[in-house]
Amino acid sequence: MATAAINSLLNYKTEKYIDTKNKAVGVLHRLFQLSVIGYIIGWVFIVKQGYQEIDDAIQSSVITKVKGTAVTNTSESGLLVWGPEEYVIPPQGEDVLFVVTSFLETPNQKMGYCAEVRTFCFHFKSLTGHNRPQNNEKSNGTCEIFGWCPTEKNIKPQKPLLKNAENFTIYIKNFIQFPKFSFSKSNILKTTDQSYLKKCRYDEKQYPYCPIFRLGDITRRAGCNFQDMATLGGAIGIVIQWDCDLDKGTSHCNPEYQFTRLDATVSNKSIATGFNFRHARYFKNAAGESYRSLYKVYGIRFHILVYGKAGKFAIVPLVVNIGSGLAVMGAGTFFCDIVLLYLTTGKKSYKDQKFEVLKYEKQHTSTDVDIS
Amino acid sequence: MATAAINSLLNYKTEKYIDTKNKAVGVLHRLFQLSVIGYIIGWVFIVKQGYQEIDDAIQSSVITKVKGTAVTNTSESGLLVWGPEEYVIPPQGEDVLFVVTSFLETPNQKMGYCAEVRTFCFHFKSLTGHNRPQNNEKSNGTCEIFGWCPTEKNIKPQKPLLKNAENFTIYIKNFIQFPKFSFSKSNILKTTDQSYLKKCRYDEKQYPYCPIFRLGDITRRAGCNFQDMATLGGAIGIVIQWDCDLDKGTSHCNPEYQFTRLDATVSNKSIATGFNFRHARYFKNAAGESYRSLYKVYGIRFHILVYGKAGKFAIVPLVVNIGSGLAVMGAGTFFCDIVLLYLTTGKKSYKDQKFEVLKYEKQHTSTDVDIS
Amino acid sequence: MATAAINSLLNYKTEKYIDTKNKAVGVLHRLFQLSVIGYIIGWVFIVKQGYQEIDDAIQSSVITKVKGTAVTNTSESGLLVWGPEEYVIPPQGEDVLFVVTSFLETPNQKMGYCAEVRTFCFHFKSLTGHNRPQNNEKSNGTCEIFGWCPTEKNIKPQKPLLKNAENFTIYIKNFIQFPKFSFSKSNILKTTDQSYLKKCRYDEKQYPYCPIFRLGDITRRAGCNFQDMATLGGAIGIVIQWDCDLDKGTSHCNPEYQFTRLDATVSNKSIATGFNFRHARYFKNAAGESYRSLYKVYGIRFHILVYGKAGKFAIVPLVVNIGSGLAVMGAGTFFCDIVLLYLTTGKKSYKDQKFEVLKYEKQHTSTDVDIS
Repeated sequence: MATAAINSLLNYKTEKYIDTKNKAVGVLHRLFQLSVIGYIIGWVFIVKQGYQEIDDAIQSSVITKVKGTAVTNTSESGLLVWGPEEYVIPPQGEDVLFVVTSFLETPNQKMGYCAEVRTFCFHFKSLTGHNRPQNNEKSNGTCEIFGWCPTEKNIKPQKPLLKNAENFTIYIKNFIQFPKFSFSKSNILKTTDQSYLKKCRYDEKQYPYCPIFRLGDITRRAGCNFQDMATLGGAIGIVIQWDCDLDKGTSHCNPEYQFTRLDATVSNKSIATGFNFRHARYFKNAAGESYRSLYKVYGIRFHILVYGKAGKFAIVPLVVNIGSGLAVMGAGTFFCDIVLLYLTTGKKSYKDQKFEVLKYEKQHTSTDVDIS
Repeated sequence: MATAAINSLLNYKTEKYIDTKNKAVGVLHRLFQLSVIGYIIGWVFIVKQGYQEIDDAIQSSVITKVKGTAVTNTSESGLLVWGPEEYVIPPQGEDVLFVVTSFLETPNQKMGYCAEVRTFCFHFKSLTGHNRPQNNEKSNGTCEIFGWCPTEKNIKPQKPLLKNAENFTIYIKNFIQFPKFSFSKSNILKTTDQSYLKKCRYDEKQYPYCPIFRLGDITRRAGCNFQDMATLGGAIGIVIQWDCDLDKGTSHCNPEYQFTRLDATVSNKSIATGFNFRHARYFKNAAGESYRSLYKVYGIRFHILVYGKAGKFAIVPLVVNIGSGLAVMGAGTFFCDIVLLYLTTGKKSYKDQKFEVLKYEKQHTSTDVDIS
Repeated sequence: MATAAINSLLNYKTEKYIDTKNKAVGVLHRLFQLSVIGYIIGWVFIVKQGYQEIDDAIQSSVITKVKGTAVTNTSESGLLVWGPEEYVIPPQGEDVLFVVTSFLETPNQKMGYCAEVRTFCFHFKSLTGHNRPQNNEKSNGTCEIFGWCPTEKNIKPQKPLLKNAENFTIYIKNFIQFPKFSFSKSNILKTTDQSYLKKCRYDEKQYPYCPIFRLGDITRRAGCNFQDMATLGGAIGIVIQWDCDLDKGTSHCNPEYQFTRLDATVSNKSIATGFNFRHARYFKNAAGESYRSLYKVYGIRFHILVYGKAGKFAIVPLVVNIGSGLAVMGAGTFFCDIVLLYLTTGKKSYKDQKFEVLKYEKQHTSTDVDIS
């Protein structure tokens, strides 16, 4: 019996079909099969690379270096030459960097009492909950406050002071890796020679892989006017996109740069536009008293955003896509059967022969399958 | 022959079935089919949105701005008014920001020799590998060190010095994009008017989309007492979660804010709690000698963590989920057949008729399929 | 009729098979089925954990703290003791931190006119677009520039000045969460006692979960010589990898540390190596005139990169993988049928009996399926 079972197991058994000779349903069936095959081959495999495993958890490290010099001449600050150590905040070359394009200096502030010009003096105080030791409304509509005096003037800049900021350059080093595939690359391509890296400026057509970007070009590509943006500040996203088909080899995995304005485009223009913050430099005089220079700096904040995905051939997505496609294809026969069994003229005949009724055998024969 | 082959190809052929009239197995089979259909429709499509392609590689850019003023009065530092330019480190509005809530100033440090009170003077030295040009243990248990003198006092703060820090506000601008769907949005909703943005404070029920957060509210929502946390410092995560069903339209894609303590909740309380660091301000006296003020600052580190995923209808996951569900449904007949062929009384009859034995035809007829 | 339809619906119907008794094709068919089953069980479920839902959008927050002291003695700066508040930039403990290992101080710079030694004086000016109010080439090949004077000397460091930087330690606190599974953990394991955290140093074999790293060990593990790297600077990535099988419990979800050099390994060595930047400290003299000390700092930039993925049992991937595997298995009969129908000797018999031709019944009987 055991050998008979094994014997039976190894015999090839195949589904029995009824050839209905129905061409209408047959053509319908073949069309459905063809469209599923077209979907699998055309859409899943050619367009979507469905035979690939995807890693979209890209890991990235960005180092930046800004170069350029600008000169400003204001009554408060005098003639000043600005280098990267002054106009790049923070100076250490992060992926988020702020380039000062305008500023308002309030020099020689000391802790003390002074008048602050505010029309809604007390309202302001109650709104913000500021703690001020002494806060007396004066006849001229100002408040006497304790704080860093003199207070900052309430002036909005009309034009950028660091006009040359447009010509500053950012050198962006980006190191990426796709951990799933143990693949890593840098945006500084191996083919580039040293002199190329010193002279090149990024240009999407001529130098698409040059990692040095002129600030004015960045804002222009983001659809902004540099001098407008430099006046009140703004935020720009430099997107580095890595779309890597690792089946084609590493030389096909290259960065693509895009530039978008992050502060204005998405939301209400009047609210969100502009970017500034204050920082201070602290001094002590001979008597040991502290004083400071307060800087309200306007400028452009660059955020280097890296994203990407890599695909590589893998057996699991291949089987999943082919298998599920085949299963859907199989479902086609279900619908064709419904048409055949309920909507065609010969439906009675189809039904009787598709569903053969089981005939029970009364006597159990001991010899197995082999009787015909 | 070729036309006959095409003819045959276009005839609809359908599997022949044996109607076993077995209702027990039939009900079993239908129940299985129903549960698979229920799984596909209920779980995969309604609960899990299995017809959607998912992009969980969200790209985010965060800008923050803190507002508020506090006053401190200490013997070392005197009466001081603190503005954001002083208590926010770094001041430029990153997604990781530190707000000073307490501090210990060691003013007027100069390079030189001074005594450092340490009970384990030499052990400490050998442990940390500090290089000190001169390091003599004295009778009173102190060491003479070369360094910035006087050394910092070993005092732990008992209460926060910037008490008003609780009322500071953080304004969070978050710009996100889902690159796969070329979708971008900001947490500053278009419907909000300018005066709303000036006055509103986040509240999960009343103002869930207000991007301005009171520090005391943040810590309270994270389950912490602000004054406790402000004394020795701590770390708070402000999570912005974007769960976007892009099939429902962009107005259904809104941020949700959550607040968690990052330093204490997850690990041993006594080790990880607290957050402080030192920074210094450097001065020179009239003789050109350097001195500095060392600040050990305690405070709350806020890390704005953005995550989210977006789903959008796509054909591939639809086919994969339907197809694989159907294939599993098909597997049900396999188990029902096993029941039928091995566990029912009429198993012999089932077997004989399910597996029709092939009869070999001796004479090959040249006319093809068309004989009936 | 309705009850008859329900009756018919609940009868179990099973595909009719032809038992071809062909062992060659039968063995082929079984082998194919076995390999698909082997693929599903072995590859998908054992190797790839295909029954798990994956979350690879890990969310991470990193806090760092560097400890150690170094002494330098240069002619410009004199004898100096360096603490973390000076050599770590920024000092507040971010996931990107720069440790100064060497520096070039240009003290007491004032705005004014001075000579800058450059051989390509005018070429340089036209290349970089620097704006200088006065820029006259002198006979000795230098330019007179307006700027911070005296200008920085063009010296490349030959050896690191903060030699002891090798013995500095970084304490890394990493808090992660997998939002899809609401799972969060920290790299500071709960089992570690307080004294362990004070004394331990990371070692991949002995102390793989100690979160304190000696700088010299980090560079050594990244395959670099510390003193070489400290001379001109460099960038190191500290990768914390979390591979979590959440079905096995949280204690199996532990961090793994890897160390890679980010600046040199991936690209042209001569171009990308080295890391330095400039920052300045600003002073005012008794007359209120500004001067500054410019620091060109060389050092190692550490970037703590956190990645990981978590898997947890879920019904959808289970069904997708089993279902698609079964569907591919079903496709095997298609190929076996082709072999049988076109490549075997009995192909005519197979064809005639596999495809039973429908016999049309002329008279329609009103009684339904139940006649046998």
